[in-house]
Amino acid sequence: MAFELTILGSSSATPTSERYPTAQVLNASGRFFLIDCGEGTQIQIRRQKIGFGKIKHIFISHLHGDHYYGLIGLISTFNLLGLKNDLHIYSPSQLKEIIQPQLDFLKGDLQFNVIFHPLNFKKPQLIFEDKKVEVLSFPLKHSINCCGFLFREKEKEANIKKECIQQYNIPIAQIVKIKQGAGFITEEGETIPHEVLTTPPPATLSYAFCSDTAFHPPIVEVIKGVNLLYHEATFTEGLRDWANKTYHSTALEAAKIAQMANAGKLILGHFSSRYKSADPFLEEAKTVFPNTEDAVDGKTYVVND
Amino acid sequence: MAFELTILGSSSATPTSERYPTAQVLNASGRFFLIDCGEGTQIQIRRQKIGFGKIKHIFISHLHGDHYYGLIGLISTFNLLGLKNDLHIYSPSQLKEIIQPQLDFLKGDLQFNVIFHPLNFKKPQLIFEDKKVEVLSFPLKHSINCCGFLFREKEKEANIKKECIQQYNIPIAQIVKIKQGAGFITEEGETIPHEVLTTPPPATLSYAFCSDTAFHPPIVEVIKGVNLLYHEATFTEGLRDWANKTYHSTALEAAKIAQMANAGKLILGHFSSRYKSADPFLEEAKTVFPNTEDAVDGKTYVVND
Repeated sequence: MAFELTILGSSSATPTSERYPTAQVLNASGRFFLIDCGEGTQIQIRRQKIGFGKIKHIFISHLHGDHYYGLIGLISTFNLLGLKNDLHIYSPSQLKEIIQPQLDFLKGDLQFNVIFHPLNFKKPQLIFEDKKVEVLSFPLKHSINCCGFLFREKEKEANIKKECIQQYNIPIAQIVKIKQGAGFITEEGETIPHEVLTTPPPATLSYAFCSDTAFHPPIVEVIKGVNLLYHEATFTEGLRDWANKTYHSTALEAAKIAQMANAGKLILGHFSSRYKSADPFLEEAKTVFPNTEDAVDGKTYVVND
Repeated sequence: MAFELTILGSSSATPTSERYPTAQVLNASGRFFLIDCGEGTQIQIRRQKIGFGKIKHIFISHLHGDHYYGLIGLISTFNLLGLKNDLHIYSPSQLKEIIQPQLDFLKGDLQFNVIFHPLNFKKPQLIFEDKKVEVLSFPLKHSINCCGFLFREKEKEANIKKECIQQYNIPIAQIVKIKQGAGFITEEGETIPHEVLTTPPPATLSYAFCSDTAFHPPIVEVIKGVNLLYHEATFTEGLRDWANKTYHSTALEAAKIAQMANAGKLILGHFSSRYKSADPFLEEAKTVFPNTEDAVDGKTYVVND
């Protein structure tokens, strides 16, 4: 199954003519998670030809406008298109109060439920899970309450060896249990260990989203070993004072987090509009963490183990 | 002085990958009026390289989201850029209540005043004037309260003939009065009429914005003789039932209004996303009003007399 991230917007507080404010879609084994929803997100989703009906879970990291101003337009469009699925929004609790006056003015009544799930800013928390995927929120260090999100596949089942099924004449009912970790007792009473019957399950994939935040090593514990890490890099070291003042990170700090977490790959984004190119960010980060790319609106990054 | 309209968005309720929701900037003799403010307006303004600091007056026709969802992002960006000018918003009175919860969450306190001017949905009203330009609102016929706007230059001064200044030895103090309509009494006591001393003033230019509305002939009285008319055409006659049901116009109806008002030129916009091209709209409208163009995002239309 696919596990891939599409960047919809990668600018910081003010959009530029080339970069929209923060928004991303993660396709995690067929679940489409929208992460932040800056102004213009619905237009970017259309351009990427992602079906609106696939988006049922939206994660809003914090209530600075460049991370949520596109939400009301998206909800309105869902409604105009006649979508009926419940929409789950994981966000700071105040978002509901902010959005409600606008929902009241929607063209036509809302045809689906919007269910708000308040985030916890004190500690990491499991906020979503189904059979295959789980999502954790974890506190970041910003000027207002802000959470990052870790999306990871659940442990997969082991692969049973076909030749063992024939050799030991294993019934179908037993195959399910063996895949989940059981051994098998043959008709002759011999116990065949799980490890002999199976090859290990495929690796689980994971993606962590960290924006907006100052350099904050406590998150390393949560995101350790993540395959793909998006970490904001609003500034380079040349504007360290600004980074400190605004609770943002430099490219160097993002790279340090990637290194400490032993991430597979790092994507930088949330660039200040002061910078005309992402090159200085990449140059700075690669001194510490070579496998770094810049976020580009419209680009898809496949997550590998 | 310039009198020209730039289209920022021309889609109807839901944006497409090529058309943003409704927004326009009118440069009326150096005043930059923003008309409606759909999602993505600030991005489109940047692309057009229109200075944010020039926009001090925003006109919101009604409270369907495709006409105002970009407002909070624009205000936020004005604030982040350090703008200090008062911002005047002419809109339905409820807009203030809708926006306030979002203003409360802006990054940093607002550095300028946002002054709301409620529209009148019963009758035409003068809502703005300065030395050179005036703006009238007038009720349209939509599913909720909605106003159109007429922007027009004030009567200009007559041009005094240079040869008359020499011939009659007219002092500077008198020139101002003559330009404004006075005649002149020579040293010999002879009265020279205003019409002899001057050539007529240049024509005043005007632009009318009519979106969203069903076919509504009472507006003709207000916009009569307008140089440039933007009139919504959400549908063509083939979807007349939809037009009736949603209080929108067809291209044919827009053309009829342009004809009845004796407009100089008609621009159609607010196209339903059902249509892949503006051609059927143009074809239909031109049967009644040949001087018709379609609104194209990013295009500027110069208003001529």
